[in-house]
Amino acid sequence: MEKLKERIQQAWQNLKAQEAEGAKAQELYAQTVWPLLLDLWRQEPQVYPLRETFEVSIHTLGTSPEATTLAALGLGASEIYVLHTSESRRYLEPLQRDLGHSIYPIEIDKSDVTKLYQAVGEQVRKHPGKKIALDLTSGTKAMSAGMAAAGYFLQRVHPELRVVYVDNDAFDPVLRKPVAGTEKLILLRNPHEVLGDLDEHLAQEFYGAREFGKAADRYQVLRRKTGQGHFEVYATLCEMYQRWYSLDFEGASSNAQRLFNFLTQDAYRNHPLARHAQRLKEQKEGLEAIVALLQSQRFGEPKGVLWLAASLLQLGDERKDRQPVLAALYFYRALELVLQYRLAKHGRDGDKPNLSPEEQTHLRQSLANWLDKDLERIRPIEKLGLLESIALLRFLADPALIEFSENELRGYQGMLQSRNKSLLVHGLEVSKKGDLDRLREFSRKLYKNTREEAGSHPTVEPVSLL
Amino acid sequence: MEKLKERIQQAWQNLKAQEAEGAKAQELYAQTVWPLLLDLWRQEPQVYPLRETFEVSIHTLGTSPEATTLAALGLGASEIYVLHTSESRRYLEPLQRDLGHSIYPIEIDKSDVTKLYQAVGEQVRKHPGKKIALDLTSGTKAMSAGMAAAGYFLQRVHPELRVVYVDNDAFDPVLRKPVAGTEKLILLRNPHEVLGDLDEHLAQEFYGAREFGKAADRYQVLRRKTGQGHFEVYATLCEMYQRWYSLDFEGASSNAQRLFNFLTQDAYRNHPLARHAQRLKEQKEGLEAIVALLQSQRFGEPKGVLWLAASLLQLGDERKDRQPVLAALYFYRALELVLQYRLAKHGRDGDKPNLSPEEQTHLRQSLANWLDKDLERIRPIEKLGLLESIALLRFLADPALIEFSENELRGYQGMLQSRNKSLLVHGLEVSKKGDLDRLREFSRKLYKNTREEAGSHPTVEPVSLL
Repeated sequence: MEKLKERIQQAWQNLKAQEAEGAKAQELYAQTVWPLLLDLWRQEPQVYPLRETFEVSIHTLGTSPEATTLAALGLGASEIYVLHTSESRRYLEPLQRDLGHSIYPIEIDKSDVTKLYQAVGEQVRKHPGKKIALDLTSGTKAMSAGMAAAGYFLQRVHPELRVVYVDNDAFDPVLRKPVAGTEKLILLRNPHEVLGDLDEHLAQEFYGAREFGKAADRYQVLRRKTGQGHFEVYATLCEMYQRWYSLDFEGASSNAQRLFNFLTQDAYRNHPLARHAQRLKEQKEGLEAIVALLQSQRFGEPKGVLWLAASLLQLGDERKDRQPVLAALYFYRALELVLQYRLAKHGRDGDKPNLSPEEQTHLRQSLANWLDKDLERIRPIEKLGLLESIALLRFLADPALIEFSENELRGYQGMLQSRNKSLLVHGLEVSKKGDLDRLREFSRKLYKNTREEAGSHPTVEPVSLL
Repeated sequence: MEKLKERIQQAWQNLKAQEAEGAKAQELYAQTVWPLLLDLWRQEPQVYPLRETFEVSIHTLGTSPEATTLAALGLGASEIYVLHTSESRRYLEPLQRDLGHSIYPIEIDKSDVTKLYQAVGEQVRKHPGKKIALDLTSGTKAMSAGMAAAGYFLQRVHPELRVVYVDNDAFDPVLRKPVAGTEKLILLRNPHEVLGDLDEHLAQEFYGAREFGKAADRYQVLRRKTGQGHFEVYATLCEMYQRWYSLDFEGASSNAQRLFNFLTQDAYRNHPLARHAQRLKEQKEGLEAIVALLQSQRFGEPKGVLWLAASLLQLGDERKDRQPVLAALYFYRALELVLQYRLAKHGRDGDKPNLSPEEQTHLRQSLANWLDKDLERIRPIEKLGLLESIALLRFLADPALIEFSENELRGYQGMLQSRNKSLLVHGLEVSKKGDLDRLREFSRKLYKNTREEAGSHPTVEPVSLL
């Protein structure tokens, strides 16, 4: 082999010594240098970083068929497709002769990136599971551009695919050929994969769609692929919101702590998320308050209740257009939670209300009034549902409930009563749009009154990634 | 202008008439043809399809600086970045001279696609909001490939970005130059956008993540961008599942009908979804049965109940790892629904159970036994919760419940009792993993017994897109 390489060098030097130019030089090259090069590549193609075996190769073909010949020899595929133009059609014959192998020609327009891209995609899809190489060495820049764009993208679905081209260590400007023997077939790396930009784009799309779990997965993949730590910071943020939105507050709180540790490290002081440090700190403290509330199981803690109610309202708001049944569930629970908090402030508990005879009478009267029923049809009250809690709080002159008129409350009663009939609770009903809006309005009002009283302003909205 | 074009033609013909080759010909070209071409492009660059104004242009530079000069003149940007190699550095000077404008050079490796891709990305990100063109005319194929891959991808985030190159209508193989006057700057279309493959990829990712609404949005965008009707069929499928998963069964059912109409049209007989016609037909009929159930509000309809329970179980299964609180809610409801159906089969109703004294005694005894309490501490039963329903059905020798041992039921009681304490119902508890598994197991068993009795086999699992 070394001997063959020496002969190639020798032939090249002889050619250069003749100082031929133009057609004459091309002819000499074809007669003396090219046959030796072919010999070398048939026996031992020069492939970097490592030779691989391909089953299918697809090539663009312009006016330099030699490079395509070398690429096809280097790839060694049994099925060879050549995308040629009307001008380069005449090189198909010599290409087949030099390869000693038939090829499948596909004519394309040399300037139409899209058509070429489409043709490549079609061929790739026709060979599922096979090892395919795309060679963009020859042809116009538009052809190579289309080939590259197609190849790098298709690699996501066909990870075995390779984009390749024939490079050289030295180019002779007079002959306009690579210095013989310096040609090499290079299997290119995929910049999307190396830099992970497509994965980052997907992660951001998932984040925007509130699919925090999927976004976190992508960022973890990015962290592994690129070795870049800043992706892990994003992954932690996504995991925090994923758990928060799933009502796993303990998990979310530990992610919040971890995120905070990252952002206070020198390495991440300039991380894009550092802009949101203040909001993230508040959210971390809010999560801690919710965790404390769930641990104590006592409804009287304002900070925990407000952050939890804000979380439920946020979840409801995000679901109200596309998942109204779930949204209703979150709004009902937020509403009830605020009522439970207010009852606790008065030292009362909806499950064991310990009603005085006076309270019992007042509650039954209120219910009779709102439901438009005779008093005797209202049974003695043992536990407090939504309506009963509201009635008791008004009787206790609770500031958050006193502002509503009897008329207003009568307007809410249908919606307040129908919770148990919901498809997700015990019934077969799907809340109507109007009911959902009323429910949202009422729960937001109660929440707002309570928030202002406590002087706390939870913001559950996830921070922006951009 | 026409006169200038004529002079260029004349100069080219003169050059060709001299039959010069190699260096001599290049020199003549530089002296006679090139100054006229420069004149033409300074005054009226030849741009296709239409001239646009750019603020920033980024060029690869190889050993053909003339094309880069024409590209820069055609783009007319005030900021010009040139990615050159160590070999092409010597062309920076003539490039600036011909342009009459300073340029900003960036040295790169001619074979490193990734570095070039990264350099382009950096420059683009440094100029947010500006109109940027990427010119891939000159340089190695690896450089053009990196430029194209970067440009087409970055266009998603920077839609104003254009990928361009200088093409020609005729190329002279002896001079290895475009026939003078046939050069043109082409603003390339983005194949990803034309074919929509990146959007389709995103749609499929969203579908896989069960974000059917987002997937539907993407398919609608694809339909508009590409004008291809088959994307609308996918959009309809996604909308069907989106509504189904949101418990909007009426909406889902009308989408199912629409999907079916598509798939029976001649135009879509070969649509990839046609493979799933049988499953989709069953799902359509299942949705219709659920709609009928919700309209009748009667729990005794086996088909509607089974499809609804299957839907709730499917939702629970998909959420059990990442959203256990929601999963528990779906499982509880599925379990309760099956119990409601079985009670209805016996002509009973959990809200008005009309228990005989014998039943009343039996139920209280069962509860005392399962809850390990004294009988006198169990209050008379007015409504049937989960435990009471199970006890009554066993007393009625219901075949779906008879198989469980008392011991087994005692194991389930904690989980069955805790529904009301859930964070999403009335309490502050988050179901434990073990409880969730037990709940899932029990609801699946009851569902399975009922399904086999009815001989119906609902499959809610969305069809595969690939």
